[in-house]
Amino acid sequence: MSEAYDAVDVIRIKRDGGAVPEAELRWMIDAYTRGYVADAQMAAFAMAVLLNGMGRDEIRVMTDAMIASGERMSFAGLGKPTVDKHSTGGVGDKITLPLAPLVASFGVAVPQLSGRGLGHTGGTLDKLESIPGWTAALDNDELFAQLADVGAVICAAGSGLAPADKKLYALRDVTGTVEAIPLIASSIMSKKIAEGTGSLVLDVKFGSGAFMRDVDRARELARTMVELGTDSGVATTALLTDMNVPLGLAIGNANEVRESVEVLAGGGPSDVVELTVALAREMLALAGQPDADVEAALRDGRAMDSWREMIRAQDGDPDAPLPQARETHTVTASSSGIVTRMDALPFGVAAWRLGAGRARAQDPVVHAAGIDLHVKPGDRVEAGQPVFTLLAQDASRFERALAALEGSWDVGQDAPAPRSLVLERITA
Amino acid sequence: MSEAYDAVDVIRIKRDGGAVPEAELRWMIDAYTRGYVADAQMAAFAMAVLLNGMGRDEIRVMTDAMIASGERMSFAGLGKPTVDKHSTGGVGDKITLPLAPLVASFGVAVPQLSGRGLGHTGGTLDKLESIPGWTAALDNDELFAQLADVGAVICAAGSGLAPADKKLYALRDVTGTVEAIPLIASSIMSKKIAEGTGSLVLDVKFGSGAFMRDVDRARELARTMVELGTDSGVATTALLTDMNVPLGLAIGNANEVRESVEVLAGGGPSDVVELTVALAREMLALAGQPDADVEAALRDGRAMDSWREMIRAQDGDPDAPLPQARETHTVTASSSGIVTRMDALPFGVAAWRLGAGRARAQDPVVHAAGIDLHVKPGDRVEAGQPVFTLLAQDASRFERALAALEGSWDVGQDAPAPRSLVLERITA
Repeated sequence: MSEAYDAVDVIRIKRDGGAVPEAELRWMIDAYTRGYVADAQMAAFAMAVLLNGMGRDEIRVMTDAMIASGERMSFAGLGKPTVDKHSTGGVGDKITLPLAPLVASFGVAVPQLSGRGLGHTGGTLDKLESIPGWTAALDNDELFAQLADVGAVICAAGSGLAPADKKLYALRDVTGTVEAIPLIASSIMSKKIAEGTGSLVLDVKFGSGAFMRDVDRARELARTMVELGTDSGVATTALLTDMNVPLGLAIGNANEVRESVEVLAGGGPSDVVELTVALAREMLALAGQPDADVEAALRDGRAMDSWREMIRAQDGDPDAPLPQARETHTVTASSSGIVTRMDALPFGVAAWRLGAGRARAQDPVVHAAGIDLHVKPGDRVEAGQPVFTLLAQDASRFERALAALEGSWDVGQDAPAPRSLVLERITA
Repeated sequence: MSEAYDAVDVIRIKRDGGAVPEAELRWMIDAYTRGYVADAQMAAFAMAVLLNGMGRDEIRVMTDAMIASGERMSFAGLGKPTVDKHSTGGVGDKITLPLAPLVASFGVAVPQLSGRGLGHTGGTLDKLESIPGWTAALDNDELFAQLADVGAVICAAGSGLAPADKKLYALRDVTGTVEAIPLIASSIMSKKIAEGTGSLVLDVKFGSGAFMRDVDRARELARTMVELGTDSGVATTALLTDMNVPLGLAIGNANEVRESVEVLAGGGPSDVVELTVALAREMLALAGQPDADVEAALRDGRAMDSWREMIRAQDGDPDAPLPQARETHTVTASSSGIVTRMDALPFGVAAWRLGAGRARAQDPVVHAAGIDLHVKPGDRVEAGQPVFTLLAQDASRFERALAALEGSWDVGQDAPAPRSLVLERITA
């Protein structure tokens, strides 16, 4: 078969700072998926995109080409609005767990197709798999039926969605081209758009525990994704949120489920509640319920009912005891004062080293492993009082976890400056 | 075996505009040659080099690492100075043919290890293979013996020189990264330095028929290579020369040999003589003979004797008739006037289409094919007078060659502005 274009010509356009025309860009993604364009050619192209950028139209076309590489789902026959949320990932970020049933309790369908964690940020499916019996694997019919009946679904994204993205992401990972904003945006959004959601709320995090440390880069990513969603017919809003401090008091898997259930019961740490409520409001506004009383649904048990239904629909037992760590190690304050700092990244790395995360995609995670915080920045501690507890199945894990935490938190005399968890709201 | 560095870290340094430290850069080239660093990783690195550049030290280290990937020759035992020339390639560029024996006639050794042509620029070995019996293949002992006895050698570069460059060049060719000046400079210079020459003169061409169209980019390449040679202990000088008009009157293979013999006999087109003499002076100056009377050696037959000896040493018959084209097609002037323009690139492309060049490395060339010019820019022509003659073995070749030449030359009333063939001399 003769090819319509030549990869070197397409690479040269981007290398020289030009905009790749639509037909060439669609061909490039398609030919790469087919294996005609070589990894080396796509790697050179990705580096040129990283250094020279891409225009709004190019990003939309590339994303559309990645969607076209695979299956595209539709929930048009569902008879209710669909809205999804995506977080760029953080430390202690269990928000999806209370959020999906909370939003579904308002009669909205939430098709939350998720992934597993890699490195210091946890994966939503890993957390839910702490629940005895719960399964992440649903076929499309099961997914559709659960959306119709229960409303909330958190399950594994099928491998048929945007296979071009899967191939490109693996390449970017080994070629130093992960950080290109057009490529991040099209990677995230191609899967979300292919999944068929009607609208989408993005939680774009910045700070030490986030993929984007720099707030300006996070804002640029958020704007790019909001534009891309809008241009692709998916109503999209983003919140720019602070990820310098772990979210909530639990970092791990089973302990994050426990904390999520507290939130669904009307309690839980104030920051987890604040972010859950803020994201639920955005999702419900996009689903046509801008005035929904989100907090009432947490207080009066509707969100909890929705959670229990969701867990049961996927063979989980919401009442079964969650795994408990065999070994614990508690770190106490050596002097009295105020917790001035808890740096998210080292806490994420320590939880990972305790077994809560994985280094390679094929590794298992230890559901009982992680860290329970007893205080957060701004809280007062007395000398000898517990600051946090490490959880593991094997006490030999503690040494390397403690090494990661060295210098990552402080107790001092002055309260830290208050910070807003939600910094900005970005809309089309 | 555990590796000292990670390719992604090295790529990131260059991607973010930093200078890659020496140990990392040496590892990267070595690990790529060994196959540990993947093509996709090196392609991303090459694109980052193209877009972010490399410092003088990095270029020297990378070149040295490419030299270290293979054999390094030495002519230290020869008892006479060695000097080589490299041209970045052009249309009608047969200068090596008269130049090597001319310089050797002064008792200097000229180890001219050459390549074959690809695309519209011809290859020195292709041209010499027009001579019945002549062989480009010499082993190292034969090369050394001929340098000692005859002084001039034009032969094929062994595959043992800078294998890293061979692998990297093939990669750059398919990834749009050929044009990076640090990579061009290190590619050319790694082979020349590994070849073991004591000094080197570079003919860096700019203009329509050159690899670098833009004079500023050609100057930057020349400066980079002069610095690199100097930093690597090889005395290096460059001439920046105009390649907007074909060199001489012959473009092809056998006809270029014929023209070279005319120059060696004291005649030949003035531009070919001018460039041959200018380059010979530079080479002899580097070899310790700044006052050598180069023109006398062309007039009195010494250069011709050296040529005949060189051809015979490689089994060629300098007196054998050269291949003649079976078919010719002459283009005449439709009006009288002055030739105002002859654009080198289309003439190169036309000669290539007639069979003088190759599209793929494994293709043969047609030695008799090419173009004979009858006039050059600045010459007067009368209506009906021949302007150039196409040479081919098969008349079906003429149509596509003539299509390439459409609009590539003009006859007008005003003489074109005179241009200097040698624009600048660049030294350390």
